[in-house]
Parts: sequence; structure tokens; C-alpha cells
Amino acid sequence: MPFGQLPVLIIDGSQRVAQTGAIVRYLGRALKLNGWDSLMEAYVDMFTETINGIFDKLPLHESDSTIKEKQMEEVWTNSVCPILDKIEAKYKLLGAKFLFGNNLTFADLAFMQMAFSIELFRPDSMEKYPALKALQKKVAERPNIQAWLDERPKTPF
Amino acid sequence: MPFGQLPVLIIDGSQRVAQTGAIVRYLGRALKLNGWDSLMEAYVDMFTETINGIFDKLPLHESDSTIKEKQMEEVWTNSVCPILDKIEAKYKLLGAKFLFGNNLTFADLAFMQMAFSIELFRPDSMEKYPALKALQKKVAERPNIQAWLDERPKTPF
Repeated sequence: MPFGQLPVLIIDGSQRVAQTGAIVRYLGRALKLNGWDSLMEAYVDMFTETINGIFDKLPLHESDSTIKEKQMEEVWTNSVCPILDKIEAKYKLLGAKFLFGNNLTFADLAFMQMAFSIELFRPDSMEKYPALKALQKKVAERPNIQAWLDERPKTPF
Repeated sequence: MPFGQLPVLIIDGSQRVAQTGAIVRYLGRALKLNGWDSLMEAYVDMFTETINGIFDKLPLHESDSTIKEKQMEEVWTNSVCPILDKIEAKYKLLGAKFLFGNNLTFADLAFMQMAFSIELFRPDSMEKYPALKALQKKVAERPNIQAWLDERPKTPF
């Protein structure tokens, strides 16, 4: 492993790429999920980093359930809602199928994953954002994604 | 600002890209600093993420100088040295001018910046890694970089 850390993506049996961000961006380029030009790629990247920033704030490792619930309310109100308010408004305004037009990008996948994570903590949270909730459902119902969601190991986050 | 946070890069007077990672990767693509193909881009990206991970561990916000020094020793020994050991060995083995061959990439810039940050805490740290210390010097002495290092605001990190 390049720096002694997982995850590592092994390419063509020998090339080893570590670091989640580097791996998903490499796969995004290969699968044309990063946007169709450099500026769009920057937007998809910005969006994904912002979503990942939310994920980093979730109190995943807090074991005391009362503290965890209190922290989650704080994160939801002060960090998540201000961002989702903006994304919901923009997505409704653009009126496209996905976040960046009518083609799926990595931003849609990152969003779906984050929405499911939030729902583990606050089950009805996404109902506040009907357009984004519909997007989450639309992405999750794509056959290959649905198949992965059904078969992946069930973990608390 | 897209998500109410700085930094923001304004492109052509109107397009606004937030998130440090998205900004530097966009500029890297524009300036051909991200590597010459997708796999190399993944390696430069992996390296940069690893370097940024070191930066995130530095006790930048600790105000008690005794605690700060203790934390820095711990980070240096347990987190930084194992990574620099690997990079020094690989860089010496390849024998190229820069980390990924004879062309400068963003990885070299990220490395130089991190090395200077570490030296703020432990002034002679990089002496343990003579090949990387020489690389740090070589990058810093490029005229445009030298000019920026001379004129940039002096901040503690």
C-alpha cells in the first residue's frame, strides 16, 4: 500500500492508488462522471467536497446517544440546512434531471450517499427538501445502484 | 459565494468556484500541473491528499506552547516520519528532478508548502531527509515561487 493506509485501488493488477478522493476522481474520469469540461469538473468537485464536509461533521463516533442526538441537531441546523437550502433552491431553479444537467455526475452519487447517512441519524430529515428527496430516490433507483444498495454490507454509517 | 465559505476562485469575472481542493485541481488542470494522463493525475492527487492529511494533523490551533510542542513531537514521529521515509526513499530511487519525473507537478508545490509548515514547528526537521530538503529548496528557488514566498503575508501557518 502506497502510504500504509486503506482504501487502495489496484489498477491493471499493479498500479496502486490510495486516498479516497484520488480514487473517486480517477474512477470519475474513467466513467465520465466528473463533468464534461474543466469548469464543470470544478463545480462537481466543489459540490462533492462540500458534501464530504457535511459527512465529516456528523457525530459518527460519539457513543453516548444523548450527546450524539444533541450534536446531530446542532450539525443539522447550523451546518447541513444552510447548505441544503442553497442546493434545493438551485436544483429547483435549474429544473434539470440531475444536479448538473441531464447527465448523472459524481455529485449526484455523493449527494445520495450523504442523504442516506443523514437519514440514519434523523429519519425524516430529507422530507424538508422535496426536490432533493426526489433526486435521492431517482439516483438510488438506477438499476446498478439499487443492486449495490441491496447487497452492500449493512453498517451504521 | 457558492456555499457562504472562502476561499472562492472567480473565473472570467462571473463563475465562482469554492472549496480549496476544487480550486487547486481546476488551476492544476489549466496550468498542466496535475500530471500528463489520468493515472498520473491520480498519483499526484493521492500524494497531495496525503500531504494535506499531514497538514491537518499539525497542532496549529493549540495555544499552550508545552502541549503544542508535545503534540508536534507525537505527530512528527507517528504520522509525518513514516510518510516522509517512504517519499524520500521513492524519490531517491527514481532519481528524477521532481517527485513525478522531470516536470513540476502540483505534488511538488504541496510538498514544499508542507515542509515549510513543519519547519515552523521544528526548524531542522527536514535535514533528516536530504533528498526532499533539496527538492524543497529547488521548488522554492523557482523565480515566480521565490517572488511569492518573499512577498506573501507572514502568518504563523
